[in-house]
Amino acid sequence: MRVELLNTGTELLLGSVLNTHVRLFAEALFPLGLRIQRQVTVPDGPPIREALIDAAARGEIVLVTGGLGPTTDDVTREAVAEWLHLEMIRDDAVLAAIAARFRRRDLAMTPRNARQADRPHAAVVLPNPHGTAPGLYLAPQPLDAGFSPHLFLLPGPPRELQPMVSDHVVPTLRQIVPRRDDVQMRVLRLAGVGESWVEEQVGAALLALRLELGYCARPSEVDVRLIGSVNDVARGEAIVRGAFPGALVSADERALEKVVVDLLAASQQTLATAESCTGGALADRLTNVAGASRVFLGGFVTYANEAKTRDLAVDPSLLAAHGAVSEPVAEAMAEGARARTGADFALSTTGIAGPGGGTDAKAVGTVFIALAAAGGTRVERHFFPSDRETFKTRVVHTALDLLRRALPLA
Amino acid sequence: MRVELLNTGTELLLGSVLNTHVRLFAEALFPLGLRIQRQVTVPDGPPIREALIDAAARGEIVLVTGGLGPTTDDVTREAVAEWLHLEMIRDDAVLAAIAARFRRRDLAMTPRNARQADRPHAAVVLPNPHGTAPGLYLAPQPLDAGFSPHLFLLPGPPRELQPMVSDHVVPTLRQIVPRRDDVQMRVLRLAGVGESWVEEQVGAALLALRLELGYCARPSEVDVRLIGSVNDVARGEAIVRGAFPGALVSADERALEKVVVDLLAASQQTLATAESCTGGALADRLTNVAGASRVFLGGFVTYANEAKTRDLAVDPSLLAAHGAVSEPVAEAMAEGARARTGADFALSTTGIAGPGGGTDAKAVGTVFIALAAAGGTRVERHFFPSDRETFKTRVVHTALDLLRRALPLA
Repeated sequence: MRVELLNTGTELLLGSVLNTHVRLFAEALFPLGLRIQRQVTVPDGPPIREALIDAAARGEIVLVTGGLGPTTDDVTREAVAEWLHLEMIRDDAVLAAIAARFRRRDLAMTPRNARQADRPHAAVVLPNPHGTAPGLYLAPQPLDAGFSPHLFLLPGPPRELQPMVSDHVVPTLRQIVPRRDDVQMRVLRLAGVGESWVEEQVGAALLALRLELGYCARPSEVDVRLIGSVNDVARGEAIVRGAFPGALVSADERALEKVVVDLLAASQQTLATAESCTGGALADRLTNVAGASRVFLGGFVTYANEAKTRDLAVDPSLLAAHGAVSEPVAEAMAEGARARTGADFALSTTGIAGPGGGTDAKAVGTVFIALAAAGGTRVERHFFPSDRETFKTRVVHTALDLLRRALPLA
Repeated sequence: MRVELLNTGTELLLGSVLNTHVRLFAEALFPLGLRIQRQVTVPDGPPIREALIDAAARGEIVLVTGGLGPTTDDVTREAVAEWLHLEMIRDDAVLAAIAARFRRRDLAMTPRNARQADRPHAAVVLPNPHGTAPGLYLAPQPLDAGFSPHLFLLPGPPRELQPMVSDHVVPTLRQIVPRRDDVQMRVLRLAGVGESWVEEQVGAALLALRLELGYCARPSEVDVRLIGSVNDVARGEAIVRGAFPGALVSADERALEKVVVDLLAASQQTLATAESCTGGALADRLTNVAGASRVFLGGFVTYANEAKTRDLAVDPSLLAAHGAVSEPVAEAMAEGARARTGADFALSTTGIAGPGGGTDAKAVGTVFIALAAAGGTRVERHFFPSDRETFKTRVVHTALDLLRRALPLA
C-alpha cells in the first residue's frame, strides 16, 4: 500500500523547526512493511486543501500532521469535511476532555479551543493525552470516482504525535495492511571506501538478489542499505562483507565511535587522545557514547607547540627539526599521551585544517594520525583538502577507524 | 516569486537522515524576500521526473537536491534533460575537475564518476569544491505551454550544498528576483534567553514598527530576525538591545565561539579549557574558528578522576568530599588549567550528561561551569535535562557565554 505523508506548518517551511515527523513515521511504519513514498510540506491555512486532494489521489494511506490547533489558520478538519462532503459535529466526549484539561491547569477555555472538539461525523477519535487536539481517523469514503484513502489527521507537536502514532496509528494500520514478517532491512556501514567504488564492486551482485538497494555517503563513510527477504538480506550482507574485508564498521547502524567504545569495553582496554588539528573533536565524538568513561582515560588538546611539550613530553628538538605537522611529532604525541595516562591505546592527530597554514610540502588538508599501542606505534599520513569542519570530521573518523581495525572483533 | 523545494533521497524518506535542507534554504532565501511555498521529498530514481514536472507547474523557482551522485539511482540530470528535451553533453571542465579531485586523493576514478560531468547543454555549472558533483542552473526553457521555471539542481550532502547555496545559488537568485534595496534584514543573536520570553518582551513593540519578524531558537540561543526599512530595523535593534542588555551575542550572524575568539584576540588574551562532561566539545567548538590557535593555549579532557588530579592538580580530597560534579571541583579544574597553561582565562565543565549517573541530589542534566581569571573564579550551576548531545551543546554554549560576558566589548 502506498503511503503519503503531508506535513502542514509554516514553521517547517521557514526552517524554524526541523521536520522530525518523517523519521518518526518511517520507523513506525517499517515493521508493517510500509514505506513513505512521498512527503510534502505546505504552510498552514488554505494550501492544505489542494495538498490533501493531491496526496489522496496518489496514496492509499495518507498521514496528515498539523492544522488541528485552535487558531484560525488551523483548518485541516474543515478542509477534510468539505472535501469529503461530511457533516461536522461537535464531539461531546472530546469537548469534555478538553474542558477537563483546562480545569486541571487552571486555565480559561476559549471558544477557539472548543473548535478542537469538532470533527467530521464519520471520523474515529484518536485520544491525545498530551494536548488538546485529538487525532482523527477516517476510513475510506466514497468519492465521485472510487474511494478516499485511509486518512489520519494528527497533531503537529512531536510530544503529542509520537505517543499517538505508537498507541493508535500503528494499531489501526495493523488492521488495514496485510502482515509482512518476511521483509527485513539491514544497514551495512563501511569505513574508508567511496560510494561509487562500493557500488562498482557489489552493486550488480546485490541487485541480482533482487534486493532493494540504497547508498548513503558521509565523509569517510558509506552506508549500504539492503531491503528484501531475510534470506536475501543475509546473502547480501555476506557479499558486502566478502568484498570489503575489514571495512565493515557495523551491520546494526551503530556509529563508528560506539563500535570502538564497545570493542574497547569488551576487551577491557583503555584509550587516551592527543589532538592538535582536530581540536577536541576526537574526544567529543568518543564521549558522545554513553558509558565512554569506562574506556576513555583522558584527552589533550595541544594546539600550541608548548602544549605538546608540556602535556605530552614531545621533545622540542623534534618540533624544531620536523615541524608540528610531521610523522615524528604525531608518533611522539600518541606515545606521550599513552605514557602519561597509562592507557592501552593512544590516538594523536596533527595536521593543517586551514584555511591558512599550508606550505608547498604540506598543503592545507595534510594530516598525520598515530596510534600508539603496547606493540608499537603506527603513523598514517592522509590528505583531506576541504573546509575546516569537514577536515576535522574526516580526521576524527579516520583516527577512530585506525583504532577499530587494531581491535579484535567482539 | 513562488519557490518549490524538491528533495530527492530514499534515506530522507526512511528517516535515516533528517531533512536539514529546508532550514538551509529558508535561511538563505529569506533575505531575498523569498519563501519556500511547498517542499516535497521523493525517493531516488524514477519518481523524481513526475515530482519535477509537478513542482515546475507550481513554482517560478524550483530547487532540487540530490540525485547527482555517481550511482545508478542518481538520475536527476537525465530526468531534467529528458523532460526539457535538452541534449546531454559531457562537460570537459567538470570532468577535469573531477579527475583532479581523484588524483589529489590518490583514488581511482571510475566511469560512474565521469557521468557526474554530464549535463544538459543549456545548464550553467555551479562549482562544487567540496564534492565531485557540480550543481547546475537552468534558466527558463520553452515548454509546450509557457516556460520552465528557474531550475537549480544541487547536491544532497549538506557540506556540499551549504557552500554552493551561499556562493552560487543566492548570487544567481539575486539577479533573478527584483532587488529590494529598501528592505534590510538583521539577525540579532541572543544567548541565555528563551524564544517565548523574547517574543513576550519585545514582540509587540517590534510589530508596531511594522517589521516582519522571525524567531529561530536553538539550544540556549535565540535569533531574532528583523526585516523592514533600514530605519525600522535600526529602531527594532535598539528595542531588542534595550530589553536584553548583555544577552546580544552578535548582530551580524557571527557564532558565539567566533565572537569569543575575536574578543580574546582583540584584547590579546588567552584561554585554556578543562572539560569533564563536555568531553572535548568545548575545545572543538573553539577550534572550529579559523585562527583560534592565536588565543587557545590548550585543552584537557579529564573524564576520569585520576585525570583531573594528574592533569589539573585537582586535590583528591576535594573529589572525595564533594564528588566530581561539584562547585569546588569545577573551580579547581578551571584554576588548574589556568595555572598549568598560563592562560588569562580557563573554562571548566563538570556535570552528568546521562543517561546514567544521576542521583537524587544531582540529577542527570546537572552541571557546574567555572571561569577562572586573574581576578578570581566564578562558578555557575545549571540544569539541562535532555539527551546527551543536546546537553553537551548547551553546556558548551553556556560556558562560552560566561566567558563572553566577562570580556570587554571590542
